[in-house]
Amino acid sequence: MVHNGIEYGDMQLIAEVYDTMKSTLGMSNLEIADVFDEWNKSELESYLIEITATILRKKDDETGCGYVIDYILDKTGMKGTGRWTIQEGAERGVAISTLAAALDARMLSGLKEEREVASKVLDEPSMQSTDKTQVVADLRAALYASKVCSYAQGLSLIKAASDEYQWDVDLSECARLWMGGCIIRAKLLGSIREAYSKNSNLSNLLVDAGFASALNERSVAWRRLIALCVTSGVTCSALCNSLSYFDTYRRARLPANLTQAQRDFFGGHTYERTDKDGRFHTAWTDAHKDIGDASQRTSGENVQI
Amino acid sequence: MVHNGIEYGDMQLIAEVYDTMKSTLGMSNLEIADVFDEWNKSELESYLIEITATILRKKDDETGCGYVIDYILDKTGMKGTGRWTIQEGAERGVAISTLAAALDARMLSGLKEEREVASKVLDEPSMQSTDKTQVVADLRAALYASKVCSYAQGLSLIKAASDEYQWDVDLSECARLWMGGCIIRAKLLGSIREAYSKNSNLSNLLVDAGFASALNERSVAWRRLIALCVTSGVTCSALCNSLSYFDTYRRARLPANLTQAQRDFFGGHTYERTDKDGRFHTAWTDAHKDIGDASQRTSGENVQI
Repeated sequence: MVHNGIEYGDMQLIAEVYDTMKSTLGMSNLEIADVFDEWNKSELESYLIEITATILRKKDDETGCGYVIDYILDKTGMKGTGRWTIQEGAERGVAISTLAAALDARMLSGLKEEREVASKVLDEPSMQSTDKTQVVADLRAALYASKVCSYAQGLSLIKAASDEYQWDVDLSECARLWMGGCIIRAKLLGSIREAYSKNSNLSNLLVDAGFASALNERSVAWRRLIALCVTSGVTCSALCNSLSYFDTYRRARLPANLTQAQRDFFGGHTYERTDKDGRFHTAWTDAHKDIGDASQRTSGENVQI
Repeated sequence: MVHNGIEYGDMQLIAEVYDTMKSTLGMSNLEIADVFDEWNKSELESYLIEITATILRKKDDETGCGYVIDYILDKTGMKGTGRWTIQEGAERGVAISTLAAALDARMLSGLKEEREVASKVLDEPSMQSTDKTQVVADLRAALYASKVCSYAQGLSLIKAASDEYQWDVDLSECARLWMGGCIIRAKLLGSIREAYSKNSNLSNLLVDAGFASALNERSVAWRRLIALCVTSGVTCSALCNSLSYFDTYRRARLPANLTQAQRDFFGGHTYERTDKDGRFHTAWTDAHKDIGDASQRTSGENVQI
C-alpha cells in the first residue's frame, strides 16, 4: 500500500515538473522528453522518468496528427491504495503530505467541468519572465529533493506501523525489494538502502548525512522554483508539500506554542513549558474560571481539539 | 467533525501568520497583538483572531518575566476530530488540503526531539530583506484568501456526504449555526451564509461572485507572501495548501493527462480523450501487448493505481 502511495507522489511530482516546463517555459513535448531522458542518466534515474520521456514522444495514432499526450483528458482515475495510505497516515499520526497532495490532485482533476467554470471567474496571474536553463536546473533539484521528502514520509509511515505492531520491518530491505520490478524502481532506492544499512535506527531519512547534504545543496534552487510556480499560478502542491515537510521537520522551534495557547484559552487543555516540567494552565482573562490542578487535567494528548 | 477540522485549519493559518511576523519581521508580541486587534475590526473579525491578541499580551505569571507565549512548548496535542475529518475527506474523494496541513503540522510538532536534531544538520536559508508594511498587508490578504479556501474545502466535504446520503444539508444554515458560540465564529460566516442563500446549488464557495472577486483582488499579495515564506524557510503549509487548492480548482487544464498516460503505459488502465468519447489505450512501445477492446477494460475509476 505504501509503495503505491509513494508512486502516487512520484507521478504527481513528475506531472508538476512537466506542467512547469510546458506552462512557464512553453517547451514542446520533444524538448521536455529530452530533459527527462537526460535526467534519467542522473540521480533521478527511474522507471517513471524513463516512461515519461517515451510517452511524450508518442505520436497520436487516432488522428495521425501531433502527440497523443495532448489529446488525453486531464481527469485522473483512482480508487484504492492512495486513499488507504492517506487514511493510514492520519491513523498512525504520521505526516505524509506529499502523498496527500497527489491524492488531492487526482480528486480535483476529476472535477473537470467545475474547473472549466472556475477558470472563467478566477484569475490566472501574469507569467513571470524566466531563464530557461536556470528553471530546468531548478526543476531537477526540486524534483530530487521533493522525492527524498516523499520517500521519507512513506518510510516513516511503515516505521510507525512496524514499531506499533512490532513487525520489525527492515527499511533497508524494503528499499531493496522496491528496486526490482516495482513501478517506483529508481536509483534513489539504492541510496536509501545504503542509509538504512548504515543506521537501521535512523529516525528519518532526512537526517542521514548523505541525504541531509543532498537536500542542503538543493535548497536554494528548490525554494526559487516553488516561488516561481506560486507566483505564476502553476500548481505545484506536491513539490510545495515536500518543501513544507522539510521546513517543518528541520525547525527546532515551530509556532505550535500559539496553537497550544489557543487550546488552553478556549478549552483549558493545559500546555507544557520550555523552562520546567509539568502541565500548566493560564487564566488568560478575568472570565477564565479556575480549572483546578492542571496536572490532573486530561492531558493534551487525549482531548479532541 | 467538519467544524473542528476547519478549526484546525484556522488555528494553523493564524500560527503561520504569527510565525511570519515573528521570524521574518522580528516583531514583538505586543506589535503582533496590535496587528491582530486591527484585523479583528476587518473582514478577518473572528473569535480566534480576538483571543490570539489577548494571548500575545499575557504576561508570564510563573516567572514574573516576559510573556507566557514565549514559555509554551511548541508541541501540539490532538487526538480525534481533525484526524477523522482527514480520513473522511479521503473516503469521500474531497480535497481538504488546508485542513490536512493543519493536522500534519500538529503531528510534526510532536516530534520536538527529532526536530532539534534535524535543525543541526538541515540548513536554514538566509533571511530576505522585507518591507514590513507590505508584508503585514500581504499577510492579511493571504490569511483571508486562505481561510476562504479552507472553508470551501470543509463545506465541500459536508456537501459530498449530504449528496451521497441524501441528508439535504442547507449549507447556508450550517454557516449560520457556526456563527453562534462556535470556536470558528467569524464575520466570514455571514458572507458564506449569504452566498449559499443566493444559490443553494453553488458547486464550490470559490465561484460565488463575491468570493471570486475577493480572491482575485488578493491573489498577487497572497502569492508574494508565500514566495517570501518559501524563500525564507518559514513554514507556511496551510497558506500554501490553500493557494494550491485555488490554483488547482481554477485551472481548466491540469497535467493530469500525463498521470493518465503513465497509468495506461504501466497498467493498461486506458484514458479518455479531449476530442472524442470513449476509452482508449495506446501501444506505447513495441513491448506493449494488445489489451483487446479498450472499452471493455475496467474503467479508470475502478483500478487501484
